[in-house]
Amino acid sequence: MKKAEIIPEPTLRRLSSYLLFLLQLREKKIRTVSSTMIANELFIESGKVRKDFQYAKIKGRPKRGYDVNHLIVEIDKILKWDGPKSALLVGVGSLGTALLGYSNFQRYGIRFVAAFDTDPDKIGKTIQDLVIDSLDNLKKEIKTKNIEIAVMTVPEETAQEVADLLVKSKIKAIWNFAPVRLKVPEKVIVEHARFAQSLAVLTYKIG
Amino acid sequence: MKKAEIIPEPTLRRLSSYLLFLLQLREKKIRTVSSTMIANELFIESGKVRKDFQYAKIKGRPKRGYDVNHLIVEIDKILKWDGPKSALLVGVGSLGTALLGYSNFQRYGIRFVAAFDTDPDKIGKTIQDLVIDSLDNLKKEIKTKNIEIAVMTVPEETAQEVADLLVKSKIKAIWNFAPVRLKVPEKVIVEHARFAQSLAVLTYKIG
Repeated sequence: MKKAEIIPEPTLRRLSSYLLFLLQLREKKIRTVSSTMIANELFIESGKVRKDFQYAKIKGRPKRGYDVNHLIVEIDKILKWDGPKSALLVGVGSLGTALLGYSNFQRYGIRFVAAFDTDPDKIGKTIQDLVIDSLDNLKKEIKTKNIEIAVMTVPEETAQEVADLLVKSKIKAIWNFAPVRLKVPEKVIVEHARFAQSLAVLTYKIG
Repeated sequence: MKKAEIIPEPTLRRLSSYLLFLLQLREKKIRTVSSTMIANELFIESGKVRKDFQYAKIKGRPKRGYDVNHLIVEIDKILKWDGPKSALLVGVGSLGTALLGYSNFQRYGIRFVAAFDTDPDKIGKTIQDLVIDSLDNLKKEIKTKNIEIAVMTVPEETAQEVADLLVKSKIKAIWNFAPVRLKVPEKVIVEHARFAQSLAVLTYKIG
């Protein structure tokens, strides 16, 4: 870690939510925003918003609030969303295909530059302007295209195996959509898509 | 709320993660598990696991740990995953199609019984055994099929409008995949899919 100070994960997550709101404000030509406005939009305390901005070293002007454009630029810089990182996807099934076509990802800092599958019928076909490649070429592609992030949309049974291969091929981060908690070395960053967790909250609350 | 005691959201989310691990253990014919094993698997403190089980009123046997099958049954009961609730999906684009075909959802307590779109070219077509319906029939379908959950995979621009229609049609819960924070009455439960939040953590940590 080259960072002097590490921003906690909940703050990072909230910063991304603030950003989505700020982009909506900019769309509506609103130029200034208070921490209270942001807090109300996200149903949190305004003190938390100010504290998050402190962590991120973002400054407001007393009584005038925050400049919307300035906030967007600052949050983009912190999250490293100011220039998209190269990403690959493994598992071009229906979810994988959907994610490859999800146009918002570019706004969230990643751009797909490669797609992989094990199915010989899929390899060689083009999807979202990418030619589906064999996993045999994974390591080479990661190196030559300087790919930092892998999105995994593979079946549960093969997820750990694919993760092992990604780690060996020197990937920096994995975003896993298979319902398996992956085991990877500490230096590799993993985020799990939490479909089950979201549904747990919904179904419990319905009662 | 008819519940005597409300289980906090972070506990609910962790319970669903414990459950996925327990299902893997059962698959491997492992019958007993300790809170330490679960904690190690999820990279959390074992005290937190025991506290979550206390909230959920799940009891272990001293020195023998927890029975895997018993835990699965208990967590399913708490999360209301012991019998799937009926769900609908609005927006049969590529992500919507992928989610309709995502076989794990049934394990996570929901079953799709209806799908809707505004595109006349899509209405009437069959996808994943469901005939795509017009939003004009939303209210009627929710009532006759006793649908409690709506999954929204619609474009950002129309998300609030669709949410308003769902609320009018007496939906109980919305799981929203559009990158917009929906405004709904307090009695309606909303969960937002947090693609941006997951990517914020990944791209920041890569640095």
